[in-house]
Amino acid sequence: MAKAAGWLDGSIMAMRGLGRGRKPTLHRLTEERQGRYHYTIGPYSDPVLTVAAGDRIAVETRDAFEGAIRTERDKPTKRLRMPFVNPQNGPILIEGAEPGDALAVQIESMLPRGENPQGTCCMIPHFGALTGTALTATLNPALPEITRKVPLDAKRVRWSERVTLPYSPHIGTLSTSPEIDSINSLTPDTHGGNMDLPDMGPGSITYLPVRSPGARLFIGDAHACQGDGEVCGTAVEYASLTTIRVDVIKGWTLEWPRLELEDRIMAIGSARPLEDAARIAYRELIRWMVDDYGYDQWDAYMMLSQCGRVRLGNFVDPKYTVGAAILKTYLAS
Amino acid sequence: MAKAAGWLDGSIMAMRGLGRGRKPTLHRLTEERQGRYHYTIGPYSDPVLTVAAGDRIAVETRDAFEGAIRTERDKPTKRLRMPFVNPQNGPILIEGAEPGDALAVQIESMLPRGENPQGTCCMIPHFGALTGTALTATLNPALPEITRKVPLDAKRVRWSERVTLPYSPHIGTLSTSPEIDSINSLTPDTHGGNMDLPDMGPGSITYLPVRSPGARLFIGDAHACQGDGEVCGTAVEYASLTTIRVDVIKGWTLEWPRLELEDRIMAIGSARPLEDAARIAYRELIRWMVDDYGYDQWDAYMMLSQCGRVRLGNFVDPKYTVGAAILKTYLAS
Amino acid sequence: MAKAAGWLDGSIMAMRGLGRGRKPTLHRLTEERQGRYHYTIGPYSDPVLTVAAGDRIAVETRDAFEGAIRTERDKPTKRLRMPFVNPQNGPILIEGAEPGDALAVQIESMLPRGENPQGTCCMIPHFGALTGTALTATLNPALPEITRKVPLDAKRVRWSERVTLPYSPHIGTLSTSPEIDSINSLTPDTHGGNMDLPDMGPGSITYLPVRSPGARLFIGDAHACQGDGEVCGTAVEYASLTTIRVDVIKGWTLEWPRLELEDRIMAIGSARPLEDAARIAYRELIRWMVDDYGYDQWDAYMMLSQCGRVRLGNFVDPKYTVGAAILKTYLAS
Amino acid sequence: MAKAAGWLDGSIMAMRGLGRGRKPTLHRLTEERQGRYHYTIGPYSDPVLTVAAGDRIAVETRDAFEGAIRTERDKPTKRLRMPFVNPQNGPILIEGAEPGDALAVQIESMLPRGENPQGTCCMIPHFGALTGTALTATLNPALPEITRKVPLDAKRVRWSERVTLPYSPHIGTLSTSPEIDSINSLTPDTHGGNMDLPDMGPGSITYLPVRSPGARLFIGDAHACQGDGEVCGTAVEYASLTTIRVDVIKGWTLEWPRLELEDRIMAIGSARPLEDAARIAYRELIRWMVDDYGYDQWDAYMMLSQCGRVRLGNFVDPKYTVGAAILKTYLAS
Repeated sequence: MAKAAGWLDGSIMAMRGLGRGRKPTLHRLTEERQGRYHYTIGPYSDPVLTVAAGDRIAVETRDAFEGAIRTERDKPTKRLRMPFVNPQNGPILIEGAEPGDALAVQIESMLPRGENPQGTCCMIPHFGALTGTALTATLNPALPEITRKVPLDAKRVRWSERVTLPYSPHIGTLSTSPEIDSINSLTPDTHGGNMDLPDMGPGSITYLPVRSPGARLFIGDAHACQGDGEVCGTAVEYASLTTIRVDVIKGWTLEWPRLELEDRIMAIGSARPLEDAARIAYRELIRWMVDDYGYDQWDAYMMLSQCGRVRLGNFVDPKYTVGAAILKTYLAS
Repeated sequence: MAKAAGWLDGSIMAMRGLGRGRKPTLHRLTEERQGRYHYTIGPYSDPVLTVAAGDRIAVETRDAFEGAIRTERDKPTKRLRMPFVNPQNGPILIEGAEPGDALAVQIESMLPRGENPQGTCCMIPHFGALTGTALTATLNPALPEITRKVPLDAKRVRWSERVTLPYSPHIGTLSTSPEIDSINSLTPDTHGGNMDLPDMGPGSITYLPVRSPGARLFIGDAHACQGDGEVCGTAVEYASLTTIRVDVIKGWTLEWPRLELEDRIMAIGSARPLEDAARIAYRELIRWMVDDYGYDQWDAYMMLSQCGRVRLGNFVDPKYTVGAAILKTYLAS
Repeated sequence: MAKAAGWLDGSIMAMRGLGRGRKPTLHRLTEERQGRYHYTIGPYSDPVLTVAAGDRIAVETRDAFEGAIRTERDKPTKRLRMPFVNPQNGPILIEGAEPGDALAVQIESMLPRGENPQGTCCMIPHFGALTGTALTATLNPALPEITRKVPLDAKRVRWSERVTLPYSPHIGTLSTSPEIDSINSLTPDTHGGNMDLPDMGPGSITYLPVRSPGARLFIGDAHACQGDGEVCGTAVEYASLTTIRVDVIKGWTLEWPRLELEDRIMAIGSARPLEDAARIAYRELIRWMVDDYGYDQWDAYMMLSQCGRVRLGNFVDPKYTVGAAILKTYLAS
Repeated sequence: MAKAAGWLDGSIMAMRGLGRGRKPTLHRLTEERQGRYHYTIGPYSDPVLTVAAGDRIAVETRDAFEGAIRTERDKPTKRLRMPFVNPQNGPILIEGAEPGDALAVQIESMLPRGENPQGTCCMIPHFGALTGTALTATLNPALPEITRKVPLDAKRVRWSERVTLPYSPHIGTLSTSPEIDSINSLTPDTHGGNMDLPDMGPGSITYLPVRSPGARLFIGDAHACQGDGEVCGTAVEYASLTTIRVDVIKGWTLEWPRLELEDRIMAIGSARPLEDAARIAYRELIRWMVDDYGYDQWDAYMMLSQCGRVRLGNFVDPKYTVGAAILKTYLAS
């Protein structure tokens, strides 16, 4: 983390945040304090916490199944009822955040909660990329319903006797509130939502559009690891202690979420079909390069054709998510 | 290359190729020997070369515009006539290749040709990801038509005064012949074609399905560098000397192309919409893991949801290309 | 209407409705009574009216621009602010409607309101099927912004000096409330919404899933006529007096909206890409034929391949809408 | 037919055809004369017939399975081998047809061939709209493989004991040759191909782009009836005697096929996703209205939003086909 501090000091959040220079207060959003978790993201729920720009919050997230899948014998179709999945903490109000601003959310750390922590991965009937679904409607028999419980710690995810994966956590769902809609926590859109981007882990800063007073931050859906696209529909879903720092960039009006990492900036789009998500991401990245880095639009377009980097978040949710990135090296003037 | 030799010795090509142990002959497919380049890939053209399994071929590829864009004042619409773009060398017959086999094509090296080599990048009206096109038909005015000539050598691509990119070449179009169709060189499909995958560079081995006697290999479309998705429609297109080694894997019947790198294996799908390309790639990767690495189908599906890697080749061609990969680390039994 | 009464007496609504045999009360939902119109459809707004199953309601709908486009000089971008378009009357509570039931909405009549009634059709920048949009993101210049004011009466729509179209009204947006989400009135989904189906005119009966107590009916977006697909993004939008009759089918649990006409039944799907909307519609139609008309699933599937009828509602909204229908002739046993 | 003669006399073909006023010769393209049928449509096969503009041809088409499915016990996977399906008659050369012209093909009549004629409809594993396919790749078990033999005559299609459908024939596949590609007969594209449009029956005139000398007409895939979208993947496929009249419109350069009926003109697009097919069709229709009927582009665009008619051909082939139409009433000046 010491090393990372270097780039964080030069991040957009650090340079332009309303809370820069303030000594942050650490808030704890425990399960008790949260009380009822949310399955829809909008302006109609009561805030659980109000914090100042620059503050830190340690959030106790529940797993995407809200703990209902306890053993490998628990079937999703028996334990879950739609749309009550992917529980979200929040909403959290951030002082000073007003429509037209951007909310910055830095993930400081993500740790598994509980003794002998386990993640859960399920094949849920008619959900996932390689099956007919509610939207890609087919008449084929469903895939088998399989639950995997996956032991993990802050270093490793023990997938199977054969394979151990590195613990590489990220937050799957991160949102501000839409202006008047309330959107289920399974769907990503311009407000953030269920983006499932592996880049959104410790060290990352996400910028979200503020569309209601106080921004109304929602957060949940920790993944201990996830492949590009989240192909079977679920990651290693687990209950986490996720510590974030929030800040407000005044007057930075975003149409879609953006992400900053040590070595790159990334614009994020969510849509169907998948090419539309990629189009949005690249267009937003070009606009960002033009507005903040002095690029000519066509130069940016043609140059990204040579050096743009694409991350597929998921192609299993009601909308699919793609990030388009450029290395910061190429942004220096 | 010395280092690379290590993994190449353990590659599928080296272990299963018909030509293993043979001392390769080096063939030269110069511009003169090629004569007329091809714009359609099929069984109806005359072979320019016949080689043995295991042989090497040094191919003089032309750039995707066949050299017709000489200066930044040359407009694509003035200099190009569809479908006569993306010229291909070949077809090359490989002895011993029969329908039902796989053709292995290892890219050994790619070098710029000519003095003061330049690449070319164009914005072609109604072509590219961020414009209405012939297929995503709109009534909007076209984007401006812009040509960039880009000085390059075997180390660097001098994109602009501000930005220099690393020379990271790959071959954009690599194909065997379909059984009875002949497909223009702009379109990728099950036979390979215009996949535009940045991974298909020196050190990579591509496996293609053989569907006609001798495989009928076509190759062209060298890129000095390319971003994920090739968003503006063209890469840094250049004339290359590309040296390949070809081999035949008897009885390995592929539905779609596959790729092997030092650290991973990748299955490739090409389709529209983009999610279908990703579905194909992941399904083929699962089949590969099941057939050749002893994985249970559902274990592979769920595990790739945790560790699969996706590369977007292009989303500008008549079909879009996606590669889905897994690290070899996870394939060891 | 006398003729129509024949089939209406045999409709699902008439045969199975909770209010059958009841003498209907006619309610008037005037602009005054409505007060504030709604731009989001969900469980969080206050009901304006409560009616009994079988009752009739005369609704004063506003046009999709809420009257803000008064002359052909009024530009949409000057007069409209997203997401405050497509105003909806309601919510209306229907007694006896509970989650798991279906709401039946029969359109009895649709008449233009006001003296010298005019409809409005606009080309809105970055909206429509033949332009880059917020989701199909391109860099092309926008299409021109054009407003057409169209004189109309209950017989004719005077499109231009050259062309007069028949007055063929339908309601563009018809919804029950989602369970926990609130969805903007531009987007169709499983709850109905902005389907823009030309079949949803006088004489039609729409069946919608009830997901909250009282169903919470929303209605708006009258079109004096509309082509298949609503290609430029808007129809002849006008202020209407729409008289409906509502009823409740107890225990008929629908996943998607359905429609009944004199000669056919139609299942409706809304999704992107467009083939997914068509898949949903056909699958729902097959399920309907199996559940209510004694068809074997595969017989229905294969037979619809010979006689299914498809209507494209729109392919311009955030989700696209398709109806799949079968003639009632083929349903008789 | 006598009645139809009226509009045919005023058709584009009759008014602008090279063969107008010529007394037509009737040619017979029997199975014997055809010899080998074709599964790929391109410039590389030998012509079977040369005719003059204005001539008539009586073509003996084979069914899409080339007669290999004889009883309901015959399984497609046992009897068919891809890509050898959908056999085509031709190529037929038309004198005077040169690249840049349009070929007009009027369907005069379609009759079943043989005694006790039967059609065939199959559910082919991994083919159809409501199943995972080779392109929409899933891991679900396949649908059952079912064959239906369907007795028919020139009036009726006896689908089942319960349902008799009207005989409403059309030709599924109609093509000129691409310039250099050769495209399998399952795929529609700019050259025509496997469009599966129910409107392409007796009385219709199809206009196809000529891209090689003599046009090289291919024809096949008669359907005794077909629903919109051909949802299960096959229609009532049968062996027909299809009589056509061909003509050449000099200098009418088309990008996509077009269709003329008694009451409407229709532009045709084929692409994936389905919205792209619809976009192409509507854009081509607008261009047609502008070029030949004096419409302003934006007037046409906005007016089609009020009165355009869409037909879904198929959404099961490698590309999907949509027709967009306008009534001739609105084209009169």
